[in-house]
Amino acid sequence: MKDLSIKSWVDYPVNTDFPIQNIPFGTFRTNIGEDVRAGSRIGDWIIDLSEMASLGYFDALEGDISVFFESTLNSFIAQGKEFTQAVRFRIIEVFSIENHDLQYNADHKSRILFSLEEVQMMMPIDIGDYTDFYSSIEHATNVGKMFRDANNALLPNWKHLPVAYHGRSSSIVVSGTPIHRPVGQIRPDDALPPILAPTRLMDFELEMAFIIGKKTALGKHIRVDDAEDYIFGMLIFNDLSARDIQRWEYVPLGPFLSKNFGSIVSPWIVTLEALAPFRVEGPKQEAPILPYLQSSGNRNFDINLEVYLESEGQKQTKISQSNHRYLYWNMAQQLAHHTINGCNINVGDLYASGTISGPSEDSFGSMLELSWGGKKPIILDNGDERCFILDNDTIVIKAFAQNAELRIGFGECITKILPAIYEI
Amino acid sequence: MKDLSIKSWVDYPVNTDFPIQNIPFGTFRTNIGEDVRAGSRIGDWIIDLSEMASLGYFDALEGDISVFFESTLNSFIAQGKEFTQAVRFRIIEVFSIENHDLQYNADHKSRILFSLEEVQMMMPIDIGDYTDFYSSIEHATNVGKMFRDANNALLPNWKHLPVAYHGRSSSIVVSGTPIHRPVGQIRPDDALPPILAPTRLMDFELEMAFIIGKKTALGKHIRVDDAEDYIFGMLIFNDLSARDIQRWEYVPLGPFLSKNFGSIVSPWIVTLEALAPFRVEGPKQEAPILPYLQSSGNRNFDINLEVYLESEGQKQTKISQSNHRYLYWNMAQQLAHHTINGCNINVGDLYASGTISGPSEDSFGSMLELSWGGKKPIILDNGDERCFILDNDTIVIKAFAQNAELRIGFGECITKILPAIYEI
Repeated sequence: MKDLSIKSWVDYPVNTDFPIQNIPFGTFRTNIGEDVRAGSRIGDWIIDLSEMASLGYFDALEGDISVFFESTLNSFIAQGKEFTQAVRFRIIEVFSIENHDLQYNADHKSRILFSLEEVQMMMPIDIGDYTDFYSSIEHATNVGKMFRDANNALLPNWKHLPVAYHGRSSSIVVSGTPIHRPVGQIRPDDALPPILAPTRLMDFELEMAFIIGKKTALGKHIRVDDAEDYIFGMLIFNDLSARDIQRWEYVPLGPFLSKNFGSIVSPWIVTLEALAPFRVEGPKQEAPILPYLQSSGNRNFDINLEVYLESEGQKQTKISQSNHRYLYWNMAQQLAHHTINGCNINVGDLYASGTISGPSEDSFGSMLELSWGGKKPIILDNGDERCFILDNDTIVIKAFAQNAELRIGFGECITKILPAIYEI
Repeated sequence: MKDLSIKSWVDYPVNTDFPIQNIPFGTFRTNIGEDVRAGSRIGDWIIDLSEMASLGYFDALEGDISVFFESTLNSFIAQGKEFTQAVRFRIIEVFSIENHDLQYNADHKSRILFSLEEVQMMMPIDIGDYTDFYSSIEHATNVGKMFRDANNALLPNWKHLPVAYHGRSSSIVVSGTPIHRPVGQIRPDDALPPILAPTRLMDFELEMAFIIGKKTALGKHIRVDDAEDYIFGMLIFNDLSARDIQRWEYVPLGPFLSKNFGSIVSPWIVTLEALAPFRVEGPKQEAPILPYLQSSGNRNFDINLEVYLESEGQKQTKISQSNHRYLYWNMAQQLAHHTINGCNINVGDLYASGTISGPSEDSFGSMLELSWGGKKPIILDNGDERCFILDNDTIVIKAFAQNAELRIGFGECITKILPAIYEI
């Protein structure tokens, strides 16, 4: 929504993540246990899209509005951008100050609007396949320095293609879902056999992800300039990682149990269209790029990313601030690469960026980097130290784009780490 | 079905893969374009389970038999082994020679039974997550010898845990689906930059896979002795691989585009119960295994595996014969490992074994190994040579368990490789 002049009859603070120009999508249920349905958000209010449909607010739209009664957004998104954007524009219209239909209908308002306390946000998507990229040059360089060769930190393929691996869909959960510290094989002493133990090196990874809105057939390639047509929107992604499990298992086939015990998404998917005012150029790609990966235009987004650690009963400490704009490989390049071999994509697939680290030490996107492999503890505001996540610590990731006139945000992606439950 | 004495009123050859003791499950549609529905097979006949349901043959069973009208088996399988085995036993009963209900009802027979020519087999499962293991010690050793160090072919973790990686679900297709040779980044000359080209090292991988029949919650671990309760049945799996794309992309996060352009399953899922007479001990695991992976009993299966290559217009040449019994890590160990960290599994997940190579050179499960990295061409029956798969070659994998009294088979898993379609 480029028209910044639109004002809503809903009151919200000037710095809200959810002004009338955002209108993200998610799913929720109310605390009295009703069915999960589709929702949006304006300021601190949840908008019940199924009620808006029932009350006729979408009657003029061409498309299937029964999808708002489903528990995930897949069928909604599958109808294509023309429909999903028409819905978004219609919501903006209904909530704009010039429009009186809902504004002056107390009964309808009581049915459509819920306070944050009245609802529980749910997993918005039934995720098909999930791929995690590795597209931050700062992150890949940091990891390479720590684990391989400080003078040749980046592997030979890194600047030629957006490195990625397949991840686990089943264990992707919505913000607020606590995750137990995983148990797994670790080998603290290379002279001794591995042991089974709860991970000692529990980490987060600060990522963003995008959701596919349009499928392809097996054998079809998506050209880099068409790739954004296939992207519905973005969300925050926390790729929890157990570094000691990872170290022991990952050669030669990549990370597995070190990553698939829980990944967390924000409940709100913000559309690419809402984020359009924040497009920026990505980093210059110096190595020669093959033509199928050459992209032009502003394909990165100036989205501020913040990570907070909250130990039990304490205030949050900001432990990292990064930005989506640092990504070396953009989403269009990622999709063009992913499909160059004919791999098909489906509505509801999730593609994560990989850890987004910035150039400065306070912008690193994981505890591994922030504490430089555990050698340099992070000092919390209360004086406590952390190299990795302890039991009952909560990690909060916030993401928002902001300029002088507008702020478009994603809310929060929250994860509390609970003690291991496996009895060894 | 342990009772070998049961005979069917359906005529079938003595060496069929599908005697009355098998009764596998799949989905199909008829050539006149009707909806996809569930089926089984006896001899050379397809059994329409939706028609059996319509005609009342399952009326005495407790469970939802409307699932046979669905296009995948997920809802059927999700009802649990008690129900799926009751269905299997009921089919055996209806087709046994002592039972006259269907045997002497020509109208019902014409509605329930289809010849192979009348139907097209479909993808039997909507696959959730797909994991590929790497559980053949012979395969891992061969690859290690070729690509790493002949004297230390196995990596340090290999004998301690069943190495695995997440794969791509979207591109798993049913037998008979042709796959185009993938295009991708390869680097034939390490002194030069990578190029974009169709793979020059197109390969198959001879694998078996199992399908999950019972879900777990996030955080739950499956004990090795309980693991088979979660397995509905097995199928043939061909993990097509582009070795040159793999070589360039796979460090450090594992195989990606080299594997996700198409994997092929057999249309029939054979239940663990049908395979019970063929249980055998697996290879002795010499290295100390952590308790959570220690399994007892006969957890491997004596299933003969054969690979045939058919170049266009020529007869098939058998190029490999292996056996499921060679797998070092069994399915129960694989599931126990996969969930030790709390990773949740879902009905319809597919877990593949990894390439199953045997000890002798003619039992290797990939062209890479059979041609020893392209150095030792495979000689076809007509005198042609192959190091890797050429365009229009067809790979056929057959799998069957057999003893003096009984043969239980999977039929065939067929893939034709078509030329690349991407215009570079």
